[in-house]
Amino acid sequence: MYDNVKLSEDETAVVILDQTKLPGKIEYLNLKTAAEMKNAIMTLQVRGAPAIGIFAGYALFVLAKSIPQTANFSATLKELRNYLNATRPTAVNLSKALDRMMNVARNTVKSSGKNREKILEALWREARLIQHEDVATCRSIAEYALSLVKDRQGILTYCNAGALATSRYGTATGGIFLGAERGYNFKVYCCETRPLMQGARLTAFELVEGGIDTTLICDSMASKVMAEGRIHACFVGCDRVAANGDTANKIGTSMIAVLAKHYRIPFYVFCPTSTLDLSCKNGKEIPIETRPDDEVHSGYFRERLAPEDVKIYNPSFDVTPADLITAIVTEKGVCRAPYGESLKKISAM
Amino acid sequence: MYDNVKLSEDETAVVILDQTKLPGKIEYLNLKTAAEMKNAIMTLQVRGAPAIGIFAGYALFVLAKSIPQTANFSATLKELRNYLNATRPTAVNLSKALDRMMNVARNTVKSSGKNREKILEALWREARLIQHEDVATCRSIAEYALSLVKDRQGILTYCNAGALATSRYGTATGGIFLGAERGYNFKVYCCETRPLMQGARLTAFELVEGGIDTTLICDSMASKVMAEGRIHACFVGCDRVAANGDTANKIGTSMIAVLAKHYRIPFYVFCPTSTLDLSCKNGKEIPIETRPDDEVHSGYFRERLAPEDVKIYNPSFDVTPADLITAIVTEKGVCRAPYGESLKKISAM
Repeated sequence: MYDNVKLSEDETAVVILDQTKLPGKIEYLNLKTAAEMKNAIMTLQVRGAPAIGIFAGYALFVLAKSIPQTANFSATLKELRNYLNATRPTAVNLSKALDRMMNVARNTVKSSGKNREKILEALWREARLIQHEDVATCRSIAEYALSLVKDRQGILTYCNAGALATSRYGTATGGIFLGAERGYNFKVYCCETRPLMQGARLTAFELVEGGIDTTLICDSMASKVMAEGRIHACFVGCDRVAANGDTANKIGTSMIAVLAKHYRIPFYVFCPTSTLDLSCKNGKEIPIETRPDDEVHSGYFRERLAPEDVKIYNPSFDVTPADLITAIVTEKGVCRAPYGESLKKISAM
Repeated sequence: MYDNVKLSEDETAVVILDQTKLPGKIEYLNLKTAAEMKNAIMTLQVRGAPAIGIFAGYALFVLAKSIPQTANFSATLKELRNYLNATRPTAVNLSKALDRMMNVARNTVKSSGKNREKILEALWREARLIQHEDVATCRSIAEYALSLVKDRQGILTYCNAGALATSRYGTATGGIFLGAERGYNFKVYCCETRPLMQGARLTAFELVEGGIDTTLICDSMASKVMAEGRIHACFVGCDRVAANGDTANKIGTSMIAVLAKHYRIPFYVFCPTSTLDLSCKNGKEIPIETRPDDEVHSGYFRERLAPEDVKIYNPSFDVTPADLITAIVTEKGVCRAPYGESLKKISAM
């Protein structure tokens, strides 16, 4: 298992495994400046809703440390928070992690005054806590996941909500890894996930490294493998869940959900409760990021594969309506419809 | 408009537009030997069910011309027919075109004896007839297609069933091109069609060249554009239609059909009646080609985008069950459910 996000030994940089280079190269990056960190999020060198949250925690700590003694610490920290927060809109974990860090800084000022060392220590502790909580969260999600499937079943995954997107085990892949540890033999079908191929590059990589029986398919083959009876459950992660259970995740997730409903296959969404955003009434209120055209027409290709004058539409996420979701699985338990009630209840736990 | 399949001026070669080089390069190939022709079909330099039929006609004529005077003409022709026929299993047009050519050869022998020149002349005429029929067929399909949509509507296409896959207008794109000639302003959403990107490389290329408002999307974005109300009809071609209306087409077509049903959007299949195969009872009897792994993990990519040890599943076609199809549109008219009756009737016309 690779560390995808950590603090450098001298604590002056956030070290990330560059996810854009996988599976060809295992390459770590030391990020010290706000611009480098913003770029890492924007270009998906670090990605996955929980991993972005963990990254944001450490990033704000490293940046806080580098605030000049002469600067207004609180005002500068707030500026840095806003700078990092403006990178990717869809996943709620980014702003939630940054808000946790800002709250800790404020509370430390309240209790101990403007003591720079104390604030930094509190920020360090909070960043570590965000990461450690995620490890425990993924482990708990994995246990619930495993209760939903049986040995030898076929599981379809979409995009990457594995260890690379989180801290360990992953959310959507947690049950698969935990099952493997306990001797289950799942047959996993991994959708490649166009345009950025997170399924082929990241999920397939993680699963194969973990010794899981993994078959890679193009996204458009999901219908056929379901029709052939190879799939018994769909496992996906998510970037934000609205109060009514509508769920934003990687573009194409709603396609898998519609197919699963048609073929009567359970469709499970896995996420930490930090991904729940009850302040969003429904999916229409979740902001959806649109990304650059070249990801679709060129991206990983040897050459441009579309004519020059064609328009491109490249939304990065779609919303899966709650009524297509069999269950939303969190570290605190399995939520089922009506989600308005079950999500509220689990959030209050 | 480009000629995708034609006879060379001296009639010693079949000339094809190399579809694997589009849209980057417009490159023609002169194919003279059976091995070159087989390779062209296998590597998809020539592709699309009707185009393969047209190609097969000219190919068998060119090969027949080159049979040595000393060889047994009929026996050699039969061997060549079998050699070409063994290239791609799913599209019925290949074997149907080859069967037409063989019948013509046999009938000429019956009526005029083993006169080599007469047989060759008959083969030439039959090959030309297959092509000319296809032009008329596409034109007629286009008229029927246009009766199913309205000006300014959004149309989703999958794979390529345009001029490159046929002779002119195309099957699935016929209505779009004919509509454009008549001043309709369709908004076409073109699915890229993984793994071989026929939608991005070929359909988008044809549509943009034809001045159509075309937006390229990844296949997995079809659900979102449908959910957003951008699509009023889905237009796809097909490789074989069974007697009950089950339809084999490019892998992913059944996904589009399931999505269309979910979003209550009409799903139309366009094909010449030569694509109907009433000897197949249903979709289960249609042979489905599985293609090489590297198309999925490497293909058009700069580098391998999947880990070394992952399994790959690469079926080239899937079967869309008849109950997901709003209508099957042929040159003789529009067939609707129950297809068992409507297809039988139209085949007898």
